[in-house]
Amino acid sequence: MTRLTRLPAWAALEAERQALAGFHLRTAFAADPGRYARFERRLEAGDALLVADFSKHRLEARTLDRLVELADACGLRERIDAMFAGTRINITENRAVLHVALRDLSGRPRQLDGQDVTADVAAVRARQVDLAERIRDSRWRGHTGARITDVVNLGIGGSDLGPQMMTLALAPHHDGPRTWFVSNVDPEHLRSTLARLDPASTLFIVASKTFTTIETMTNARAARDWLLHGLNDPAATAKHFVALSTNAKDVAAFGIAPDNMLPFWDWVGGRYSLWSAIGLPIAIAVGGARFTQMLAGAHAMDEHFRTAPFASNLPVLMALIGLWYVNFWNAGSVSIAPYSQHLSRFAAHLQQLDMESNGKRVNLEGEIVDHATGPVIWGEPGTNGQHAYFQLLQQGPALIPLDFIVAALPVHAEDDAQHRILVANCLAQSATLAVGKTADEAFAEMRAAGKSDADARKLAAHREFPGNRPSTTLLVRRFDPFTMGMLLALYEHKVFAQGAIWNVNSFDQWGVELGKQIATSLQGVLADPQANAETVSQGIVEAWREARQRS
Amino acid sequence: MTRLTRLPAWAALEAERQALAGFHLRTAFAADPGRYARFERRLEAGDALLVADFSKHRLEARTLDRLVELADACGLRERIDAMFAGTRINITENRAVLHVALRDLSGRPRQLDGQDVTADVAAVRARQVDLAERIRDSRWRGHTGARITDVVNLGIGGSDLGPQMMTLALAPHHDGPRTWFVSNVDPEHLRSTLARLDPASTLFIVASKTFTTIETMTNARAARDWLLHGLNDPAATAKHFVALSTNAKDVAAFGIAPDNMLPFWDWVGGRYSLWSAIGLPIAIAVGGARFTQMLAGAHAMDEHFRTAPFASNLPVLMALIGLWYVNFWNAGSVSIAPYSQHLSRFAAHLQQLDMESNGKRVNLEGEIVDHATGPVIWGEPGTNGQHAYFQLLQQGPALIPLDFIVAALPVHAEDDAQHRILVANCLAQSATLAVGKTADEAFAEMRAAGKSDADARKLAAHREFPGNRPSTTLLVRRFDPFTMGMLLALYEHKVFAQGAIWNVNSFDQWGVELGKQIATSLQGVLADPQANAETVSQGIVEAWREARQRS
Repeated sequence: MTRLTRLPAWAALEAERQALAGFHLRTAFAADPGRYARFERRLEAGDALLVADFSKHRLEARTLDRLVELADACGLRERIDAMFAGTRINITENRAVLHVALRDLSGRPRQLDGQDVTADVAAVRARQVDLAERIRDSRWRGHTGARITDVVNLGIGGSDLGPQMMTLALAPHHDGPRTWFVSNVDPEHLRSTLARLDPASTLFIVASKTFTTIETMTNARAARDWLLHGLNDPAATAKHFVALSTNAKDVAAFGIAPDNMLPFWDWVGGRYSLWSAIGLPIAIAVGGARFTQMLAGAHAMDEHFRTAPFASNLPVLMALIGLWYVNFWNAGSVSIAPYSQHLSRFAAHLQQLDMESNGKRVNLEGEIVDHATGPVIWGEPGTNGQHAYFQLLQQGPALIPLDFIVAALPVHAEDDAQHRILVANCLAQSATLAVGKTADEAFAEMRAAGKSDADARKLAAHREFPGNRPSTTLLVRRFDPFTMGMLLALYEHKVFAQGAIWNVNSFDQWGVELGKQIATSLQGVLADPQANAETVSQGIVEAWREARQRS
Repeated sequence: MTRLTRLPAWAALEAERQALAGFHLRTAFAADPGRYARFERRLEAGDALLVADFSKHRLEARTLDRLVELADACGLRERIDAMFAGTRINITENRAVLHVALRDLSGRPRQLDGQDVTADVAAVRARQVDLAERIRDSRWRGHTGARITDVVNLGIGGSDLGPQMMTLALAPHHDGPRTWFVSNVDPEHLRSTLARLDPASTLFIVASKTFTTIETMTNARAARDWLLHGLNDPAATAKHFVALSTNAKDVAAFGIAPDNMLPFWDWVGGRYSLWSAIGLPIAIAVGGARFTQMLAGAHAMDEHFRTAPFASNLPVLMALIGLWYVNFWNAGSVSIAPYSQHLSRFAAHLQQLDMESNGKRVNLEGEIVDHATGPVIWGEPGTNGQHAYFQLLQQGPALIPLDFIVAALPVHAEDDAQHRILVANCLAQSATLAVGKTADEAFAEMRAAGKSDADARKLAAHREFPGNRPSTTLLVRRFDPFTMGMLLALYEHKVFAQGAIWNVNSFDQWGVELGKQIATSLQGVLADPQANAETVSQGIVEAWREARQRS
C-alpha cells in the first residue's frame, strides 16, 4: 500500500496549506457573509438536532474537497463498510469491531462466525434491563432484605470512564439508586467511597472482561471484605455483587451466581463498551427506557456515518478537519469544551477513546509512520475553562483547535435566562478565538478609556488577540439520552475515520501491556526489603524504602 | 535586552540537543549504574521529604550545566529576588507579586508602599482561622439556630480550583462541615448541588475579588433566592453568606455584614489565592492548624527556591527541564500523573497555574516571541490514566514528558499492601517509558509464548515500545498538609522560573478579557429575537434560535 504521505492527495493538501498561509478567519468572515451557511452541517433524527459549525476553521470550500479526496484515496468508504460488515479489522488481535451492533435495535440479523450476533445482543440487553429494573424497583434486595440505595461500579478504563461519564451526563434523568465509580487501585478511592455507605443497602458491580484486572479485582476483594465484615455472613456476597465479565469460572468462585453475570464479546473494545453490559450502571441510574434511547441515538449516528456522502458526513468531516491541523498545521492537541457541568467527564472519556485508539506509531503494515497521529485530548467544562486555561488558547503561540459543545435549551425551563449566559459565553469564545483583536484596536480602546498615549502603546501588544484560532461548535437541542448517544457515536466514528486514514489499528492497545508486566515484577521488589529492581528503577525504589523507614 | 534565542546559552543548548540526537535512556542507564544518584535532588523540611528523580530525562550532567547557564544568562536570580522583595514585576498591571508573603509565618516585617504587609496578612489570617473555627465548632449557626453542616463555595477560576483541589487533596484530614464547590454559570451546577442541601444548615462563601464576576454573582443571587425561599425571611442572608472580596460596598448591598467579609490584596493573583482568604473552605474543612501547616510547607519551598543554588534548586530544575523539552525537543504538552485519587483535581489546578501564567506570546518588551512558551498541562490520576491514554504516551509518535507524583506511605497504615500495588504501577510506568521494549525482545517473547515465526514477526512491530520517553518522579513521604504546601509551591515557582526565562509576564491574563466583552454583547443578542450578532456569530445564533423554537 502506498504510504499516506506519498499519496497525491497528501501533496495536494500540503499545497493547500501553503495557499492558506495568509488566511485569517477575520477577513474570511468579513469577505463572505455566507461563510457560516457554507460550512454548517446538520443531523436531525426524530426530535434531536445536532448542528456542526465548521465555519470557524482554516478552510475554504476547496480545502474540504481536498480533504475528502484524501479520505477517498485512503479507502475510507471500504473501511467503514468493513467495520459494519463484521470484518476482523482489528488485525493484531484478529477480532471484529462491532460495537455498532450493540445499538442496532432494528432486529436485522447479523452473523459473525456462524453466531447470530443480533440475537445474542438482544438476549443480554434484555437481561441487563431486567436486572436494572429489578434493582430500581427493589425487587432485588440485599441480604438483610434492605432496598439497594447505592450501587458501586468497580472497573477501570473503559469499564469506568464510559459508564461514569454517561451516568453523570444524564444526571437530570437520574431516578434510580445513587451510583458510585471506584477505579483507582489507590486504596483511598474505595475507602473514602465506602465511608459513606451502608453494606446492607449497597450493591457492587464488578466490571472486568477477564475478571483478572488487578485494580478492579483488588478493589472487589476489599469491597467483599467490607461487606462481609458489615453483614457478618459469607453468603451475603450473592445478594450484593453482580459481574460484567466473560470469565464465568472466576466469577462463580468469587461468590457471584451465574445468573448475575452479564457477558459481552471480544468484538466489544473496552473504550466502546458502555453500549454493552458495561453500561449497567447507566441503566440502573436512569432506567432501561432511557438507556435504550441512548442506544437509538447512537444508531442514528451510525446510519448517518455509514450512508452519508463524506462532504456532509459529520464524523468524517470532524476527522478530516482534525487531521488537517494535526498533520498540516502541527497541532499536538485538541481541547474539548462542553458547556455543561454534567459533561464534566466527557473530555476524560474522549481521552481514552481517542488517545488509546490512535496513539500509535506503527501502521497496519507494521511500518513506523512518518507523520503525526492521534493528538492529546484534554479539557474542562465551560465556563470554568475560560477562567483557567483559555488565556493560552487565546494568546499563547501554539495552535490548539477546540470543540465547543452546547445545548440550545436548559435542562429546566425556568433556568432559561441563566442558561443564555452560558450559551453567550460559549459563542463568545469561538468568535473571539476566530476574530481576535488587533493591536490598533486595543490601543484605540485604551486611549478611549483615558490611558496616556505611551501607556496605551506599551500595553497594546499585551492586549492584542491574534485570532485565526479554529474551533468547531456542536450545538444540540438538549442533552437528553438520545442526543448523548448521537454525540458520543459522533466522536467514536471520528476516531475511527482518522485511524483509517492514518492506516493504524485503532482497536488494539499493546502500549498498556509492558507497564503491567513491570508493575507485577516491582510489586515483588517492594514486598521484599532485600530484592533489587532493574537498574532504571533501583534508585527510586531505594528512595521509597528510605522515605518509609524514617517516618 | 537580548532576545532569548540570540543568547549564546541558547545556542549552546541547540548544540547540546544535536549532541544528544542518539541518546537513549536505556543505554544511559545500562552504561552508568550511578545515573540515578547523579540526577536525584531532595528537599527535607521537618518530617517532610520530597525526592525528585530527574534521572529519566534526556540529559547528561553537561546538559544540566548548560540549562543552568541559560537561567543565569536570563537573570533568573535577580527575578527571584525581585519577586520576594515586592518589586512590581507584574508590569502590565503595575502590581507586586507577593503570594509568598501569605505563607511566611516568621513575622518578619515586609513593607509595600508604606504598608506593613506582614501585619495585614496576619490580621486577615487570624480572622479567617477564627471564622473557620466558629463554623466548625458551631458557634456560628444558621438563621434558625441550626448547625452548619454544608458549606458551598461560589467562585470560579482561582477562587474555585485552588481551594477545591486542596480540600480534596486533604480529604483524609477532613473533619469539618461538608464542602461543595459551584463554579459554572451552567444553572445545573448550582441546582444539582442544592438539591442535596437544607437551607437551614447551609453556608455560602461568595469568592470574588471584585464581587462582579458574572458566573459567581449569578450563582450567588440564585443561591440567595433558594435560601430565602427556604427560610422565608430576608434577614437570613446575614447568617448564611460570607464574602471573600475587596468590594465592601457591593458585599454590604448583597446583605453580608462587613465582619463577614475577608479581604485580600491586588498583589495576590487569582491562581495563587488559595493561600489567602480564598483558602477559607480549606480551613473550614480541615481546621486552622492544618491550614497553617500547609502554609508552612509552602514557605519551606519558598526558602529553598530563594536560596538554593540552581543546580540543586527543585523548582528551577523542573523549570529548566520542562523548557528543555518545550523549546528544544518540540514538546507541546506535559502530562501530570499523581498516583493518588485525592489528587484528582491537581492537574486541573496546574492547568490554570501554568497555562494562564505562561500562555503568552509577547515578552516584557512587547515583542512577539520567536519560540514556544507555556505547554498544555493535562492529566488524570494514576492508575486510571494507564487504562486510558498511556497507550499514546508509550507508543504514539509524539514526545510528551510526564510528572509522576507518589507518596511512599499510604494514608491508612492498614492499606500498606494495596498501596504498594499503586507505587509499583507508578514506578513501572516511568521505567517502561524510559527503557521500552525492542522489536527483537517482543519477537522473542512471542516465540517463547508459542506464536509462529510469521505471526511473531508480524506482531513485533506493534508490540515494540520505543522507550526514551522522559519523566520526573516526585516522591513524597505522605500527602499531608505540609507536604501539599511544598508540592504546590514547587509548581508555582517552576512556572515563575519558566516565565522569567521566557521573559513573559506570568502574572497578567489579558487573554480572558475579550471573551467577557463579547459574551456580554451576545447576551443582549440572545435575549432579543430581533437582534443581530456580529457576522462571525450570526449563523450559529440563528441555529440556536431555530433549535429552541422547534422543541
